[in-house]
Order: sequence, then C-alpha cells, then structure tokens
Amino acid sequence: MEISAIIKRNGKNGLPDKPEAGEKERNGLRMGWEKNVRNAVPYTPGEQPGGGNIIKLNTNENPYPPPPGVLEAVRNLEAAQYSLYPDPDAGALRQCLADYYGVEKERVFVGVGSDDVLALSFLTFFNGGRPVLFPDITYSFYDVWANLYGIPYRTVPLREDFTIDEKDYMCENGGIIFPNPNAPTGVLEPLDKIEAIVRANPNAVVIVDEAYIDFGGESALPLLDRYENLLLVRTFSKSRSLAGLRIGFALGSKKLIGYLQDVKFSFNSYTMNLPSLAAGAASIADEPYFREQLRKVTQVREWVKKELQALGFSGTDSRSNFVFVTHPKIPAKDLFLALREAGIYVRYFEKPRIDRYLRISIGTREQMHALLIFLKQYITERK
Amino acid sequence: MEISAIIKRNGKNGLPDKPEAGEKERNGLRMGWEKNVRNAVPYTPGEQPGGGNIIKLNTNENPYPPPPGVLEAVRNLEAAQYSLYPDPDAGALRQCLADYYGVEKERVFVGVGSDDVLALSFLTFFNGGRPVLFPDITYSFYDVWANLYGIPYRTVPLREDFTIDEKDYMCENGGIIFPNPNAPTGVLEPLDKIEAIVRANPNAVVIVDEAYIDFGGESALPLLDRYENLLLVRTFSKSRSLAGLRIGFALGSKKLIGYLQDVKFSFNSYTMNLPSLAAGAASIADEPYFREQLRKVTQVREWVKKELQALGFSGTDSRSNFVFVTHPKIPAKDLFLALREAGIYVRYFEKPRIDRYLRISIGTREQMHALLIFLKQYITERK
Repeated sequence: MEISAIIKRNGKNGLPDKPEAGEKERNGLRMGWEKNVRNAVPYTPGEQPGGGNIIKLNTNENPYPPPPGVLEAVRNLEAAQYSLYPDPDAGALRQCLADYYGVEKERVFVGVGSDDVLALSFLTFFNGGRPVLFPDITYSFYDVWANLYGIPYRTVPLREDFTIDEKDYMCENGGIIFPNPNAPTGVLEPLDKIEAIVRANPNAVVIVDEAYIDFGGESALPLLDRYENLLLVRTFSKSRSLAGLRIGFALGSKKLIGYLQDVKFSFNSYTMNLPSLAAGAASIADEPYFREQLRKVTQVREWVKKELQALGFSGTDSRSNFVFVTHPKIPAKDLFLALREAGIYVRYFEKPRIDRYLRISIGTREQMHALLIFLKQYITERK
Repeated sequence: MEISAIIKRNGKNGLPDKPEAGEKERNGLRMGWEKNVRNAVPYTPGEQPGGGNIIKLNTNENPYPPPPGVLEAVRNLEAAQYSLYPDPDAGALRQCLADYYGVEKERVFVGVGSDDVLALSFLTFFNGGRPVLFPDITYSFYDVWANLYGIPYRTVPLREDFTIDEKDYMCENGGIIFPNPNAPTGVLEPLDKIEAIVRANPNAVVIVDEAYIDFGGESALPLLDRYENLLLVRTFSKSRSLAGLRIGFALGSKKLIGYLQDVKFSFNSYTMNLPSLAAGAASIADEPYFREQLRKVTQVREWVKKELQALGFSGTDSRSNFVFVTHPKIPAKDLFLALREAGIYVRYFEKPRIDRYLRISIGTREQMHALLIFLKQYITERK
C-alpha cells in the first residue's frame, strides 16, 4: 500500500498552536479595567485540523460513526422545537442513563461533555482551604481548573510504572481526582485500590474520571452505594462516538448530585441543547451497536500493541482507546513531527516524565495499518 | 372563538417549582466532605411545561420557527462528523457573526446561550474587590452569578419609571452590567446615556446585555470602536428562534474578547456542539426571513399593548418581545394563577417593586388573541 495514497501532506509543521487569546499583558503591568480581569492560562486541546486525507489519532475520538438511530433522532427534530428552550433538567436523558446504570435519576448529572461536568465539579466540591490531590501525570485540564478558581492543589507523583500508590492519598486534603484508566498513560487501577482511597477520605469528595472506562476497565460503579463522597464522571465522546455533540455525565449519591445541580443552575439553566438531548438518548437505546463498536476498538488496540512492539516500541498496557508508547532510539518529538508532516496526527506532551512518549488514538484497522507502515519505513530510514 | 378549544387545563396550580436540588442542608451543620461544598442558590428558570395545548408566554421564546435553512444545515450533518470534536474555536460561526456586524473575528465570542457568555464574563471581568453594580430590577441571574463566584455587588434602584439614572453609576465600582432593553420591564435606554456610563468608567468593564435589542432597540454597537471596556452580549434564543440550540455571543474589543477566550479555554475547550455551530451560521445566512419575523413580533406587540390598555392595564413601552403590565384592580398573582389554570403560562416575579406586574411574552397573533379573550372574560367576572 502506498502511504501517499492515504496520507496527504498538509504543509504545516511545528507543535500545536495555543488557542487564540487576543492581546495579553500577562507579564506586564495591568492598568484600568484590566486590573479586575482574571488571570487564566488555558488548557491546550489537541488540534482539530481541517481538510480531508489526514489520519486523526490525536484526540481519542472514536473512528466509527454513532448508531443510525442517533442521526435519525436529530433529523426528526421539528422546527417548532428549535424555538423553545430545552428541558433545563435534561430529565429524559438523565432517566435513560439512570435506567441504564440501575440508579435513580437524582443520582445522574449531565453536562456539555465531561469537561463541563468536571469544571462544575471543581467549582462545587473543591471549595475548602486544603490542597486538592491528583497525580503528576494525568489529564492536563485538572491544574487549569484549579488555577481558574484559585483552588490550592498538590500533584502526587505516580510510581515509575505510572501506577498510583494509594498511601499517597491517605493524608489531609481538600479533595481527590484521578482518571481511571489514567490519561495519557492508559493505565487501569484495580477497584480495591480505588475503594481504599475513597474509604480513607470521608472528609473529601473523590472524583474518578472514567472517560475511558468502557474500553475494558472495571468501573467503580459498585462502590457508589457504599460511599456518599464518590463521584464518577463519564463521557459520550469516546466510547459512544459523539464527541461532536458534547455530552458528559456524572453518577454519585443524591446529595452529591444535588449540590452539583445547584451550582449548574447557578451557572447556566440550559446547558444541553435539543440535538444533544435527543442524540444521547438514542445512543443509549442501541446497546448491540455499542458493544460491537467497543469490541472492534479494543481488538484493533491489542493488535496495534503487538505490531508496535515488533517495531521496537514499548509502553503501558493501555485499557483505553489509545496506546502510550516510546521508542528506545528515536525521540518521541521527532516521531511526532515526522508523522504530522505525513498527515498523521498523534499527541505529544512536552512534559517531565512523559516527553519520550507518544499517545496514539486507536483508529480503524486501515488507519492503524497506515500508521504502522509509515513508522516501519521511518525507523528503517533513521537507522 | 371558544377558549377551551385552544386552551387545555393542565390541572396544575401554584407558583413555579424550584429546580430539583437533591437533599440540602443549607441551614444545618455540614459535616465531612460537605464542608468543602460551595453554597449555591440557583436561578429559577421559567417553567418548561410539557404536553400540547398550552400557550407558552413565559420565557420570551419566539413563536415562529427558525428559517428552513437552519433545519437543513442540521439534517445535513453526517455521521462521521458526529464522532469528531467540533472546532474548539468555533471559527466559522464567529466569522459569520464578524462579517454580519462588520468587526474582526477576534472581536466575537460565542457560548452556550447568552447565559454561558454572561457566566464566563462575570468570572473573567468582575475579579476585583470593589462591588459590581446593576439595577435593582433586572435579569435575576446577575446576583446568582455574583454569589456563585463570591463577587461583591450592589444593586442600584431604578427610577420610579424603571429607567436608569446614569449618575448612580458614576462612582467607584468593580464592573457594571445591565440589560438594554431591560428585563423584565422592556424599558429601552438611549445610546447617549449608555455612552455616558461607559465613558465615566474606564477602570471597569461595562457589560450591556442586549438579549432583546433586535426587537426595535438601538444597539451600543457603534460605541465598540471607541471604548475598549465595553462588552455587548447577545443571544440567538429570542430574535432568531433558536432557544433549543443554545447559542449566545459577545462583541467587544480584541483585548476583552481575548481575556474571555482564555477563561473559556480554561473551563471547557469544546462548548459549542456541531448542530449549534451549523444552525447558528445558517440563521445568519437568511436575513430576509429574520427581518420579516422581527416585523411580525413587533407588530403583534404593539397591537397587544393597545388591547391590554383597553382592558384597563397599564405598563412600560416595551421594546422587547414581551410586555410588562399591571392592572389597577386585580392583583398580578391572581391573574398569573388564573391564566396558568387555563393553560396560559406567563411570568410573575414575587419581588419588591414588580410584584404587581406580569411579564407576557409575545406569541403569535392567535395566541395573543386567546390571551386577550381570557383576560376580558376574567376581568368582567371579577367585577
């Protein structure tokens, strides 16, 4: 297979740009009205390059479309509905999720992607004076939210193998958050470790960010009935192929969800729009499609792991829809740039401890085949 | 016309419920993890009653559907797009708005309805120690946002005729916000008064909430080039018949919008979903439809004002898509409850200075006809 047949050079190069931010004077002296402005250093999302003929493996999207029922539900919305405010309570979607997970509706919260749910959770639950704890290698939005709201925090180093040492979280704190599986490593923590952390912290809310749990992890769902202070956050963006619709949710005790609802209704009454409410419910309705899609993604992931190993890569045993790999001879940044030049977008984090790694989302078998062919050729040429 | 033919009793009564809020212990002693929880007293949106056969004049929605191009744009979205994250920059929609208003894209911000834009603006711009100023009678979300973020504020009494005295805003403050036309009064302030306030406050951001400006008000748009500290906030929910899609935006200086973008990207990278981006651009594209729809709403409004006057009501000269009226003999709450019982939903605020008034959204001519028939009969029977 000719790489050029499926990969088109897009002429761009360099690391991802930061989102546009107007003219700033962060380091200068602020005068007049600017003195009252909040200092925010934003999160940098993965690139969303336009144009066709690229292979996009950089933001952990699902390579498969959502089930046909989702599009049908959105297309069936009528003009008269567009003019009216959506249900501020998002009642129907919350009930769908409640039924699916076997909990009451009052234990389900929905938001504009899991980022919205997490941003509001930081605002709601991390309002004490003690530092919030999260791993040093983790979803890079956590410190952004903490800084935005002025929440004190402390990052806790993961072990050398990127696993959590639960004893590190058994100390005074103002809250705890970590993803499981972790991002960008894909490392899955066992349920007993999570329970130990939750049990040891009755005075703090513990948030487990389960954005990737559907790809083969064991959810902390069974713990919810025993711990009032546990919040699980999920998303439709990865496993449910609905990144474009912006749907996230949280599961927790009635008390926890009640507090979150209060803050949500103090921020924006109507966050979920008509198409997202319709699409979310339709996604939940097609379980066989969902299962089949998950099977395909995890099957390709395991195959890709083996193929990368054959090319000399090593990495974590990711249980997510991405792999996290390093090559002993070629710097990750070189690989990132070469791939980008070839129209294959992966994610590279220029951060301590992980700057030798690439995070590569699991695409279709054809996309991953193209990636592997390119890497094989590139590695051979570098020798 | 038989009222019963178009109005169906829905069997409910009483004032609107507050949104569900779980089990709260606001006034009790908080223990354990609850000590770190933010105390939020949410905004109460107008009811979104389900079921047909009601006349909904309570949340200032547009009674007409959006133009056909909007539905077409949403229906044409393809399955493969649903799986991908939308453009985090919302570049295409921002460019549409920029072209429409004759400004650069970097002077346009978009959000999940104007509530999202306003919530983020409070967080961004009202970060000083001095109190933020807004009228005592105004959009009732302002104090909710201030309380949510712990922003000090002071409400400034409107004059007896519900107009602003600009001299009240010529003092030390941490920011200023007011709607123009005001809600729920519909009173429009002239441009020279707004300019006087903006000019007198170079050390504060002044936000003019122009949610209703399309219905016949003069926008402060011409002031934007002269005042770096002026932010105008708009919405697609009222004049553009897209309440269900959640689209709001702000216009301001590059510097102001840059700061707002920084906070937005520190909160949620992807706020605008695929259908809202598509619908927003399609709405802007059909100017003749937009103009015709505005003409219809304002024409019905002026007719309703006269008819209500004939029934003994008095009120403001509203320039919004609602009227704000009081009856000399019948308490507003009685009218509110009687209308509700008859399936006609209007808005009643049990607040000082305005508890004798009803805010009635402008529906179709047929809906308003039914309202007037009911009121005429009700007033006659009460005599």
